[in-house]
Amino acid sequence: MLPSIRLKKSKSYKKPGSAPGTIEHIGERHMDEIEITVHDFDEDHLEEVPIDQIQKAKPYLDEPSKTWIQVSGLHDTEKLKSIWNFFDLHPLIQEDIVNTSQRPKVEVYDNCIFFVLRLLTYSEQEQKIRAEQISIVLGENYVMSFQETSKEHFKPILDRLSVKGSRMRKHQADYLTYALIDAVVDYYFNIIEHIAGQIEMLEDELFQDPEDHLLQQIHKVRREIIYFRKSVWPLRDAMNTAIRDESRFIIDSTKIFLRDVYDHTVQVIDNIENYRDMVLGLHDMYMSHVSNKMNEVMKVLTIIATIFIPLTFIAGLYGMNFNTEISPYNLPELSWYWGYPAALLVMGVVAVIMVVYFKRKGWL
Amino acid sequence: MLPSIRLKKSKSYKKPGSAPGTIEHIGERHMDEIEITVHDFDEDHLEEVPIDQIQKAKPYLDEPSKTWIQVSGLHDTEKLKSIWNFFDLHPLIQEDIVNTSQRPKVEVYDNCIFFVLRLLTYSEQEQKIRAEQISIVLGENYVMSFQETSKEHFKPILDRLSVKGSRMRKHQADYLTYALIDAVVDYYFNIIEHIAGQIEMLEDELFQDPEDHLLQQIHKVRREIIYFRKSVWPLRDAMNTAIRDESRFIIDSTKIFLRDVYDHTVQVIDNIENYRDMVLGLHDMYMSHVSNKMNEVMKVLTIIATIFIPLTFIAGLYGMNFNTEISPYNLPELSWYWGYPAALLVMGVVAVIMVVYFKRKGWL
Amino acid sequence: MLPSIRLKKSKSYKKPGSAPGTIEHIGERHMDEIEITVHDFDEDHLEEVPIDQIQKAKPYLDEPSKTWIQVSGLHDTEKLKSIWNFFDLHPLIQEDIVNTSQRPKVEVYDNCIFFVLRLLTYSEQEQKIRAEQISIVLGENYVMSFQETSKEHFKPILDRLSVKGSRMRKHQADYLTYALIDAVVDYYFNIIEHIAGQIEMLEDELFQDPEDHLLQQIHKVRREIIYFRKSVWPLRDAMNTAIRDESRFIIDSTKIFLRDVYDHTVQVIDNIENYRDMVLGLHDMYMSHVSNKMNEVMKVLTIIATIFIPLTFIAGLYGMNFNTEISPYNLPELSWYWGYPAALLVMGVVAVIMVVYFKRKGWL
Amino acid sequence: MLPSIRLKKSKSYKKPGSAPGTIEHIGERHMDEIEITVHDFDEDHLEEVPIDQIQKAKPYLDEPSKTWIQVSGLHDTEKLKSIWNFFDLHPLIQEDIVNTSQRPKVEVYDNCIFFVLRLLTYSEQEQKIRAEQISIVLGENYVMSFQETSKEHFKPILDRLSVKGSRMRKHQADYLTYALIDAVVDYYFNIIEHIAGQIEMLEDELFQDPEDHLLQQIHKVRREIIYFRKSVWPLRDAMNTAIRDESRFIIDSTKIFLRDVYDHTVQVIDNIENYRDMVLGLHDMYMSHVSNKMNEVMKVLTIIATIFIPLTFIAGLYGMNFNTEISPYNLPELSWYWGYPAALLVMGVVAVIMVVYFKRKGWL
Amino acid sequence: MLPSIRLKKSKSYKKPGSAPGTIEHIGERHMDEIEITVHDFDEDHLEEVPIDQIQKAKPYLDEPSKTWIQVSGLHDTEKLKSIWNFFDLHPLIQEDIVNTSQRPKVEVYDNCIFFVLRLLTYSEQEQKIRAEQISIVLGENYVMSFQETSKEHFKPILDRLSVKGSRMRKHQADYLTYALIDAVVDYYFNIIEHIAGQIEMLEDELFQDPEDHLLQQIHKVRREIIYFRKSVWPLRDAMNTAIRDESRFIIDSTKIFLRDVYDHTVQVIDNIENYRDMVLGLHDMYMSHVSNKMNEVMKVLTIIATIFIPLTFIAGLYGMNFNTEISPYNLPELSWYWGYPAALLVMGVVAVIMVVYFKRKGWL
Repeated sequence: MLPSIRLKKSKSYKKPGSAPGTIEHIGERHMDEIEITVHDFDEDHLEEVPIDQIQKAKPYLDEPSKTWIQVSGLHDTEKLKSIWNFFDLHPLIQEDIVNTSQRPKVEVYDNCIFFVLRLLTYSEQEQKIRAEQISIVLGENYVMSFQETSKEHFKPILDRLSVKGSRMRKHQADYLTYALIDAVVDYYFNIIEHIAGQIEMLEDELFQDPEDHLLQQIHKVRREIIYFRKSVWPLRDAMNTAIRDESRFIIDSTKIFLRDVYDHTVQVIDNIENYRDMVLGLHDMYMSHVSNKMNEVMKVLTIIATIFIPLTFIAGLYGMNFNTEISPYNLPELSWYWGYPAALLVMGVVAVIMVVYFKRKGWL
Repeated sequence: MLPSIRLKKSKSYKKPGSAPGTIEHIGERHMDEIEITVHDFDEDHLEEVPIDQIQKAKPYLDEPSKTWIQVSGLHDTEKLKSIWNFFDLHPLIQEDIVNTSQRPKVEVYDNCIFFVLRLLTYSEQEQKIRAEQISIVLGENYVMSFQETSKEHFKPILDRLSVKGSRMRKHQADYLTYALIDAVVDYYFNIIEHIAGQIEMLEDELFQDPEDHLLQQIHKVRREIIYFRKSVWPLRDAMNTAIRDESRFIIDSTKIFLRDVYDHTVQVIDNIENYRDMVLGLHDMYMSHVSNKMNEVMKVLTIIATIFIPLTFIAGLYGMNFNTEISPYNLPELSWYWGYPAALLVMGVVAVIMVVYFKRKGWL
Repeated sequence: MLPSIRLKKSKSYKKPGSAPGTIEHIGERHMDEIEITVHDFDEDHLEEVPIDQIQKAKPYLDEPSKTWIQVSGLHDTEKLKSIWNFFDLHPLIQEDIVNTSQRPKVEVYDNCIFFVLRLLTYSEQEQKIRAEQISIVLGENYVMSFQETSKEHFKPILDRLSVKGSRMRKHQADYLTYALIDAVVDYYFNIIEHIAGQIEMLEDELFQDPEDHLLQQIHKVRREIIYFRKSVWPLRDAMNTAIRDESRFIIDSTKIFLRDVYDHTVQVIDNIENYRDMVLGLHDMYMSHVSNKMNEVMKVLTIIATIFIPLTFIAGLYGMNFNTEISPYNLPELSWYWGYPAALLVMGVVAVIMVVYFKRKGWL
Repeated sequence: MLPSIRLKKSKSYKKPGSAPGTIEHIGERHMDEIEITVHDFDEDHLEEVPIDQIQKAKPYLDEPSKTWIQVSGLHDTEKLKSIWNFFDLHPLIQEDIVNTSQRPKVEVYDNCIFFVLRLLTYSEQEQKIRAEQISIVLGENYVMSFQETSKEHFKPILDRLSVKGSRMRKHQADYLTYALIDAVVDYYFNIIEHIAGQIEMLEDELFQDPEDHLLQQIHKVRREIIYFRKSVWPLRDAMNTAIRDESRFIIDSTKIFLRDVYDHTVQVIDNIENYRDMVLGLHDMYMSHVSNKMNEVMKVLTIIATIFIPLTFIAGLYGMNFNTEISPYNLPELSWYWGYPAALLVMGVVAVIMVVYFKRKGWL
Repeated sequence: MLPSIRLKKSKSYKKPGSAPGTIEHIGERHMDEIEITVHDFDEDHLEEVPIDQIQKAKPYLDEPSKTWIQVSGLHDTEKLKSIWNFFDLHPLIQEDIVNTSQRPKVEVYDNCIFFVLRLLTYSEQEQKIRAEQISIVLGENYVMSFQETSKEHFKPILDRLSVKGSRMRKHQADYLTYALIDAVVDYYFNIIEHIAGQIEMLEDELFQDPEDHLLQQIHKVRREIIYFRKSVWPLRDAMNTAIRDESRFIIDSTKIFLRDVYDHTVQVIDNIENYRDMVLGLHDMYMSHVSNKMNEVMKVLTIIATIFIPLTFIAGLYGMNFNTEISPYNLPELSWYWGYPAALLVMGVVAVIMVVYFKRKGWL
């Protein structure tokens, strides 16, 4: 019954006046325990090691090979702090990772580049769009990714990583970062298809039977689009920042790929804007249909009423009980030989005139 | 019954997380076989040779003459790959050529400039706008064009190319590229004429008979304009990129012509915006007409009902069966000598008052 | 009956794929013959010579005096070509002069500056805005102007030119160009006055009698404004281009005047935007009036119906024919001594209650 | 009855093709005679001298003290020309001073800076916004101001000027210019308060009694806002130009104050935009109220009609005159002992069912 | 009943033409007396001293430690003037501090940076958004804050300040300034949650029972959003100014934090825009619901009326009193043996036809 994207009511923002870098996880979904997985790879070898303490990642980081540290789950602040301190991350990065209502952005720090993205997936069984914040830290020879739930969304990345000699294995850590961002943007196209499907379905129903529940569904799609736009819109500027970035973390050959992600983002935004226009169009259509139906209802009422009201009046006229014996002027028609047939004739003529009039008006 | 531009429901985007440059043709229309045609020309000679293997184009490319390699059909990935490898195209170009849902763009690479365009034609018999992606690669002394269907759309270009001493023969490959883009933009004016015709027709019908089906047609034109805008809008920026490009592939004298294409694109966009405004105006008109008609219907009902209801009441009054013999206060009018004429007179007076009132209100 | 600005349906764009600079006049209005007039002037002398061949203009051009070549009529392609070749104009200029659906623009070429303008006049007798393309070529010491119809629109310019020692005579050819552009922009203010008058008239009528034909007139003004905006909007950017132009054709003291034209253009656009807002406001007003009238109609119906329907029911009640002789419970009222007066009293009370209720509701 | 801001119908623009700098006063309000007042001041002295010929201002201008020449009335072109020639003003400045439909702007010339402003005041007795053009010329050590009516609007400036040692006395002429502009902008806040008051009043009335005349008032405020916006909007850019100006006429310490005026202008524009939104909101509210009232009217009609129509039918049924003596099947109810009470009972039941149904629907 | 954000009607702007830097407190809320509190702190010590004369702050300012002078209450102009003169503040700063209707801004002066912010809090008991202007002056080693009411809003800042070794204690005065701004922006998120809650509640009610009072609540939220946007919007540009500022007052490491505030501001604005869209959507929904309900009302009326009107006519027909004895053509049906049952049958058939018709139309 209710629109699928709920506005946040639960505690979702830090307390006014509290210090920046206040570390407190804000969000709903929890895992049992934080999982840390180290993927160490170069062109020739690939190792995937689950670890429980960040210190255990040190040997992998010291080697010249590239290292991807994948962190799932954001509820255990202590463990996260140990990771951040290990990598000497700026307090604002720490705050942004756990406060999962950030808008997408790219920020360049002295020792790393920090990406915030929103991963959107459509859950068929809950019938709503699920959002999750993906934070990526790209440093010297390592990539760290933080996410709220399990790692399955990046399964295809892992598959590609396992192919020896693949581009991801050959390139530096910035290429892996690109691949993660690209995967997130690719998910947006699923949402686009979902919304496109919804709009098409609504359109079909609208032309067959514009019932009341359609209004709710139009409203639901409208809200989904607003939410979707809010998640994607800032990414365009963020990608632009990343492309124009002068830091040493992203090399030029990777920027060509980021430009491609930028193009996809623009394409997604174009689509969103068009769908917004279409949904507004649908609402206008709905309103027009309701007006049309009301018009039709009114016509039926008017035709029936205006034909029969005069007839009923005539019948009422000759139902009056004026004393016909007192005066020849009192209802003399009642005593005519052809009185009744004449009355019927008059009624018939009135009805025919009405019908002709309505035909002329185009109401019949 | 349904709007002519369907939203994509079929598989149209790559799988999230799959590698960039994943080569898979996305689109509907297929030809039996990929056709490759080499047009080799300079001021003095012109040769048109269909080839089956890209290697056979080598002798033409080695000559100083200009070479246009026209590829029709995008379904045979193997063959396309052989072409791309032959010319050493970037993986992202390869992906964009076969994924035919790209937005128009211009991208500069080290060894070529890459154009993506959308060719729009209005199919009278299907009553809808057909879209096709045209990809153009402009390299050193050669032009390659990729399209999904047969080559007829560029027939006029071929005709001009066959004229000895024509500008196209004299200039470099960049001028041919310009000519291809110009041809695509020229097709947009056909769509503009189609939409203009639709709007004019709807406008005429609206003033004669605003029926329900008009609503659907207004909606259809609205969607066509949204789709059209989406296809043309990005081209403006793309052309701007091409004009300001500093690479060696486009010389200055050709840029004057590209500026002209840019102007045409802007003109097309201006028209689209105006048509959008007009269609919104049409919808407002339609709604106003429906309101007006409802108002008229209501007026007729009101006039008839308010005139006859009081009359019917009077008739009903004298149809009551109070026992006039028991008391002189029971319906004495029934026994008046002029009772019936008096009743008719009263009814007449009431009716006249009503009519006068409605005249004053301007309802009659 | 129909809006005055028709959408173009007739052939108005070049064929897709045809060469740029294809010389073919596109437009409706023709003169019998192309008229070429040479105005040769400097501070001391002024000569106005109609010529039939452009070669005859040579002596005037060779002199240091300024020369204005005014060409009226665009249908004789051969003659125009001879002029263009004489001045060595770029093919794109040639195409733009005869294809009279260009948007306003300024383009700088090696040997000249090229201006395209739209002259708009309101034809009282046709009740519509007439548009005409004015093309101006400003070269070394000469100005060429091309227009579709006779020369009367520039009559005031000629008058000022005939005044010895006037600024136009003293300054260079660029000042004459400015004067021509200024004259075109001045005509826009006539259109503004026309539209302002229309809006004011509609507003007055709206408050007196919002009839159906008003809707069409509002729609007509709306379209006129869209058309007007389309013609003027691009001129702003074009004038900006001209002011910032670095070429040798326009000197700085003239640019001050062009800046003034720019200001006027912006003022025109401001007005257009305001009128657009006002017309939207008018439409909203119209819709509100229709709603209000419908509301009033409904009220009258409701008041009359709800007062009389209960009364009619009571009258119907005592018109029933139950056999009063069989039982004392069958319509005993009919046999009451004060039966009829009592019934009338009840009816009166019901009516008064209804009236009081409606008064309370504010419906009466 | 009619909206207070009339569109200009009277001659308000120069004739197309006439020379720039055509000196002709365009506007309505006249004074009997042009008044010229010289205010000569420096830190120590202040002199206010009405003069009749501009030549008499010469001695004051030659002194190092600052001079403000205040001109009221614009109808005497000859006198104005003598002033302009005395100061050698550019023809375009001259045209702009008398053509009082200019949009606000700032223009830098070789020998002066020229400001055009619109002074808006709300006239309580005429119930409308009055506009007046203020032109200010800031030259070397002098300020000239031109206005259409008497000088009272700048009375507070004169008061401050008369205070010995005040900032205005100490600073250069550019500070006086700032003070004049600031005074004009301050008047805008009066208009804002007037509009805010109107909106608040309309809002209050709307919630009490949305009558028809409200619609006109909403429309009037809407037009006032459009007009206000048109007068203020260009001032923002103009002030920006003045702040960034590199000429010698405005010194840096004064620019800080101009920046403050700029901030106020932006604040005014912010308010205008918000009021525009609010007025649109009011119109939507009005429409919603009309719809709600119509809905209520319809409900009353529907309830009364649908309750009594079936009852009236039943009454009609037993008013039929079928011959009960011929057949036991003709209206046997009429001869029942409990016939009439039974009929009343049926009617009561029908009425109760209807009422319950309406209660369920939430209509009662 | 009335919307909670009242438009200012009381004197809220300075008199036109009055001098800049006119010191007059504009605003509603007063405290009994102005409170001045000095917070002197460095890494090791923290002192909080209430003072009554600004001169008493001198010793603290002379020390190298950082000093925060917190001023609450703006009504005592004399006392404020003594403070301003002590710090040699520019007259425009003075005017802005007491005129509490400023838009948020950042201004750089020679001896300080000046921030104006709007603190918004939602008062549950007054059911409205309360606004208060916070002015902050950041000078060499000191911060001054001015606010209208008591100091409780900055309580959390004081708490953090009291933590020895906290970042605020370690950093310079610019970090404290950042902390104050950050606290103000954090309060915006409370407003966002309040508005989100309102929208959600309205949405729920809308789908259950769209009553008239909802319209007022939608209107109220709409106005709150307009007001909120007006308060926050200018802050974005202001923060941008602060970040790009080259002055010596804000050091680079603090700018990273200001960038974070900028991000939050953008996030707030994003949310506002989305809520605006949603409220417009709600209003559309409301209107659609009203239309739907009207449609339903009309249907019920139409169904009842069109079924019974023909039946009543038939009953009326046989209630006529034509003299059946005079002629066999006068109402012979009345004397039929099966007359009454036949009449009932006809009525039943008519009713069934009607019902079937309405079923077909989908009205039942």
